[in-house]
Amino acid sequence: MFEIKYKDGAGRAGVFEVHGKKLEMPYLFPVINPKRQVLDVKEIEELGFNGIITNSYIIYRDPALRQSALEGGIHALLGFNGVVMTDSGSFQLYQYGSVEVSSREIVRFQDEIGVDIGVILDIPTPPDVGYERAERDLEETLTRAKEAARLSRKMLLAGTVQGSTYAGLRERAASGIAALGFDVHAIGGVVPLMEEYRFADLARVILHAKLKLGHAKPVHLFGAGHPVIFAFASLLGCDLFDSAAYALYARDGRYITARGTYKLEELHELPCSCEVCAEHSARELKGLEAEEREHLLAKHNLISCLEEIKRVRQAIYEGSLWELVEQRARAHPALLEALRVLKGYSAQLERLEPVTKRSAFFYSGMESLSRPAVARHIERLSWIERRGAELVLLPDCEKPYSRTYRLTSSERYHVCIASPVFGIIPLEIEETYPLTQHEGVATLDREQIAFMRRVIAEYAQRFTKVHYHTSLGFLGIEGEAFDEVSQFRFEGGEELKLRALADYQLGRGAGEVLFAGAKAEYSRRTGRIRRAFVDGELVATLRASDGIVVPTIAGAERLLRLRYPRCRVVVAEEARQFAKEGKSVFAKFVVDCDPEIRAMQEVVVVDESDELLATGTALLSAGEMLEFERGVAVKPRHRRR
Amino acid sequence: MFEIKYKDGAGRAGVFEVHGKKLEMPYLFPVINPKRQVLDVKEIEELGFNGIITNSYIIYRDPALRQSALEGGIHALLGFNGVVMTDSGSFQLYQYGSVEVSSREIVRFQDEIGVDIGVILDIPTPPDVGYERAERDLEETLTRAKEAARLSRKMLLAGTVQGSTYAGLRERAASGIAALGFDVHAIGGVVPLMEEYRFADLARVILHAKLKLGHAKPVHLFGAGHPVIFAFASLLGCDLFDSAAYALYARDGRYITARGTYKLEELHELPCSCEVCAEHSARELKGLEAEEREHLLAKHNLISCLEEIKRVRQAIYEGSLWELVEQRARAHPALLEALRVLKGYSAQLERLEPVTKRSAFFYSGMESLSRPAVARHIERLSWIERRGAELVLLPDCEKPYSRTYRLTSSERYHVCIASPVFGIIPLEIEETYPLTQHEGVATLDREQIAFMRRVIAEYAQRFTKVHYHTSLGFLGIEGEAFDEVSQFRFEGGEELKLRALADYQLGRGAGEVLFAGAKAEYSRRTGRIRRAFVDGELVATLRASDGIVVPTIAGAERLLRLRYPRCRVVVAEEARQFAKEGKSVFAKFVVDCDPEIRAMQEVVVVDESDELLATGTALLSAGEMLEFERGVAVKPRHRRR
Repeated sequence: MFEIKYKDGAGRAGVFEVHGKKLEMPYLFPVINPKRQVLDVKEIEELGFNGIITNSYIIYRDPALRQSALEGGIHALLGFNGVVMTDSGSFQLYQYGSVEVSSREIVRFQDEIGVDIGVILDIPTPPDVGYERAERDLEETLTRAKEAARLSRKMLLAGTVQGSTYAGLRERAASGIAALGFDVHAIGGVVPLMEEYRFADLARVILHAKLKLGHAKPVHLFGAGHPVIFAFASLLGCDLFDSAAYALYARDGRYITARGTYKLEELHELPCSCEVCAEHSARELKGLEAEEREHLLAKHNLISCLEEIKRVRQAIYEGSLWELVEQRARAHPALLEALRVLKGYSAQLERLEPVTKRSAFFYSGMESLSRPAVARHIERLSWIERRGAELVLLPDCEKPYSRTYRLTSSERYHVCIASPVFGIIPLEIEETYPLTQHEGVATLDREQIAFMRRVIAEYAQRFTKVHYHTSLGFLGIEGEAFDEVSQFRFEGGEELKLRALADYQLGRGAGEVLFAGAKAEYSRRTGRIRRAFVDGELVATLRASDGIVVPTIAGAERLLRLRYPRCRVVVAEEARQFAKEGKSVFAKFVVDCDPEIRAMQEVVVVDESDELLATGTALLSAGEMLEFERGVAVKPRHRRR
Repeated sequence: MFEIKYKDGAGRAGVFEVHGKKLEMPYLFPVINPKRQVLDVKEIEELGFNGIITNSYIIYRDPALRQSALEGGIHALLGFNGVVMTDSGSFQLYQYGSVEVSSREIVRFQDEIGVDIGVILDIPTPPDVGYERAERDLEETLTRAKEAARLSRKMLLAGTVQGSTYAGLRERAASGIAALGFDVHAIGGVVPLMEEYRFADLARVILHAKLKLGHAKPVHLFGAGHPVIFAFASLLGCDLFDSAAYALYARDGRYITARGTYKLEELHELPCSCEVCAEHSARELKGLEAEEREHLLAKHNLISCLEEIKRVRQAIYEGSLWELVEQRARAHPALLEALRVLKGYSAQLERLEPVTKRSAFFYSGMESLSRPAVARHIERLSWIERRGAELVLLPDCEKPYSRTYRLTSSERYHVCIASPVFGIIPLEIEETYPLTQHEGVATLDREQIAFMRRVIAEYAQRFTKVHYHTSLGFLGIEGEAFDEVSQFRFEGGEELKLRALADYQLGRGAGEVLFAGAKAEYSRRTGRIRRAFVDGELVATLRASDGIVVPTIAGAERLLRLRYPRCRVVVAEEARQFAKEGKSVFAKFVVDCDPEIRAMQEVVVVDESDELLATGTALLSAGEMLEFERGVAVKPRHRRR
């Protein structure tokens, strides 16, 4: 069973439970060669791995191994009690063009020898083959998948998405596989892309597969065993990896780091602190006997992979996965190219991007301007209702802006910062995520200037008049320049601020229903709005850390004036009572919801007759909470008394 | 004694020998608190540190410690036989405004207790103080420095550059300190810049100090103890660091990584493989008693610092320090800002940049276009003599370009690639560093396009006519568009190629004297030019790995036709015989040289009457080989028979 605990980008961290054994995701399966294993399974276990992957076809083809596996089971054969996944021979099929077993037979065999997660015998189509071959191969894979899915079995089964480098075929493959109820969705045929550093193509393959695979199953990126790609693939929603690279590279005398690979002879120092590198110098490693060197290199390589997987998990937990990916993209220009490709998939990625995170938004270059959080910000700017106002544009400065300039927006003047990271930041919403926690650079580049021009020009159209500070002349804004900021001096505007925040966070019209006529109570310590009242009734609080509007039950009642299913998570009758008692809403009881819900958004929990039960924080996006059978969809906050 | 072994950027890797004990540079001194040490000195030694730094003022002020240090010496007091450096109380001066000791007294004391490297009691001026105060403080520091420099002593002594955030004062301070013959040059007063993430200001402070400090002494950046800055400071030429952060952060429950710092409670995973992180989970660390937690955190923190120092040394060795810095710059926007600042110091940095490296040039974003290697390329383009030719511009493609397009430059057509990384790449020189080994991205950004336009427009002025491929229309080139590449088909042009390579690598006119009338011999294996003959005489070989022209003795004789001191390293009479015998030329015997010599360039070794002795590879830049008292300046290649 698969449960998401933390999300960032399209990446997921959580638990995959297989026959009572729990794998922390993202998880990396070390590949075990049943015939020649450079690292003992016990050593691998001691490093902290509780799942491995091996090749059932090799075992099937070797009479002694086969006999032993059939008699004692795969766990006894390998001397490993954790999760054992097996590949089915499709690598051999790719390598040698044919295998001497049918798909049905090898799936049965995997189940018979007690494998925890088996794989169908799919046809691995290389990149760039003719469309007809890719389609034919895919049809065969889907036929085999259907057959395998029908077989009764004790093990979990993975179905593999193929389709070469054709976006349409990858989508068709993913739809086909997703319909068959596999336990794991695998993406195959990507090893040649990895080997040729075609990370942009790899990104496209993953994105097109993910588009149709749904959310509810773990996704295994087959054969992506180098840490240079873990953060990137995780960002796109891959949960499981396997690595033969740690051992294959060791045999070649190659040393893996998350920043790339070295030949041992290129190393003057060992840039790592693992037990191998702490105990040996580069010179010592080079001087060892081949076998010992291979063993130590394999160990280092595997630790290096594990370290990066942990780094990715931590990044998902804290919400810095985009930042990690943007750093890793500088390990090779092909990774930077892959990052630039994501710009075209912004809408797809935005749906899975949480609305608030534990960590700040760090600008790292022009690619940061294409992050879904920026696209979302620009989209949501248009949700803020500001009829009849004049736009006032001020240059970026120290945050909080309203304190630096000692002013805020009024009925007449909608004051905004011309921001090199977000384009436009209205002062009303400056204290909410990601605006309040972002860090940029002072030295602007041409991409930032073009971006600011575009966002400002579009936003300015909504206003009757535009005033811009003379220092913004380089942006070519159509409007009236001014020098003196003080003419716009205004303090107050609390209702405007509350309404803008609600519009921005909860959608068009939310400010009107929640905060029309609202009065604010300020925190003595921070000077920020802490609570909002309408007609003396507390309707919402503002979270200090990220300016998120948290409606009370009274506020939630107001939000229900928005047309169904706006802001709502609808629970099934059987979970109604739990929700009412202020307990977590589990995804399997969610029968409907606002399709615009994003993870970490505040939501209203209702029953099927739209009766208010509670409020809470969505831990999943709309698509995820509708699909998942496991895990919490909404963490409760207030319940109706 | 200080010896450079490898160089990259302005960074240096090598050995600093202190009283017979060798420190590998860049080196990090862990700070030892003589009163409360969280990590035992023995533990620090076991991690691989053979030099530490402690505070002589604390010892001086504590009667028991002082007594013990005076009687048994600092090494016995600390239980450490490696290099002991001490600070002098200027940190206390900064912290508390005064100290109860004179500079003369504390310098004497350091020497008396047997310190290996002492420090003068300089005045640490904070950033942004008034100019007058900064200047007054600096005068006092320089007075103290003069006094200290005159004291007779057994220990090495460091003089500290102050001057707050004033470029002029930093330069004046550096000139003053450099004139006094200290053993170590320190840069002080930067801790507040580090604490406030003012890395751009830190870069300026280092660059202005380095400009006047000369090359021959190790440079210690005082108080820069976080790994996030090591690569960057090393790139700018800092060799020594000290870290109290490992312990101070541990006391605060903070966990250091090269990508930034975490509070322990923010960690869900430990993204590291050191002995502490291999043996504990984040949850376990959080649950420990305060003292044990502090101890383990300090150990992890120090290992994390050491790992980054090793990474920096490896990067200098392989020539990827710019790439490492550009990766690290994505750890925080303030580091990216600092990187952008370097654009303004390109000429200063270019003088120290090697002309060839073990590793490839990786483009990582617009900042890569401001690297000294790019500025140098554009400068050297103008060195290539191409009179009366027409310029032909082709789009970027797979390398080698001439093979992809099946053509090369002819007398009439000078064929170039419009390159998004180098602006212009003439086919004649495509196979030399850094052109042949560079990797870029396919998705161009506005900065790249503006850069290409600028370089192409300037270069095009030299030609009678410009032809550009229609696909380059977006560059707005003035000239004639063409579709059909084959009209320029030409193979051969070997003399043109050789002459262009010599001009590009050895300066204006080098092609004419070395290769006029040359014939090439091609490698059967690679199809590239391997050797060049003039009138049947071998004048040069071309190195396969990076296309560097390696003159023979006959070639060197021709190069001597270039006006003195072009291409030359002049050795003193006493070293004449050694050089003639084909031995290494040590820096201390270099009496003059071509000021345009860069590290890794091929040079001609002559005596003081300009008689040819040998050829070789410069391991240092011109400025360095003139200043250094130690180490090899020229690695020999051919000697005159």
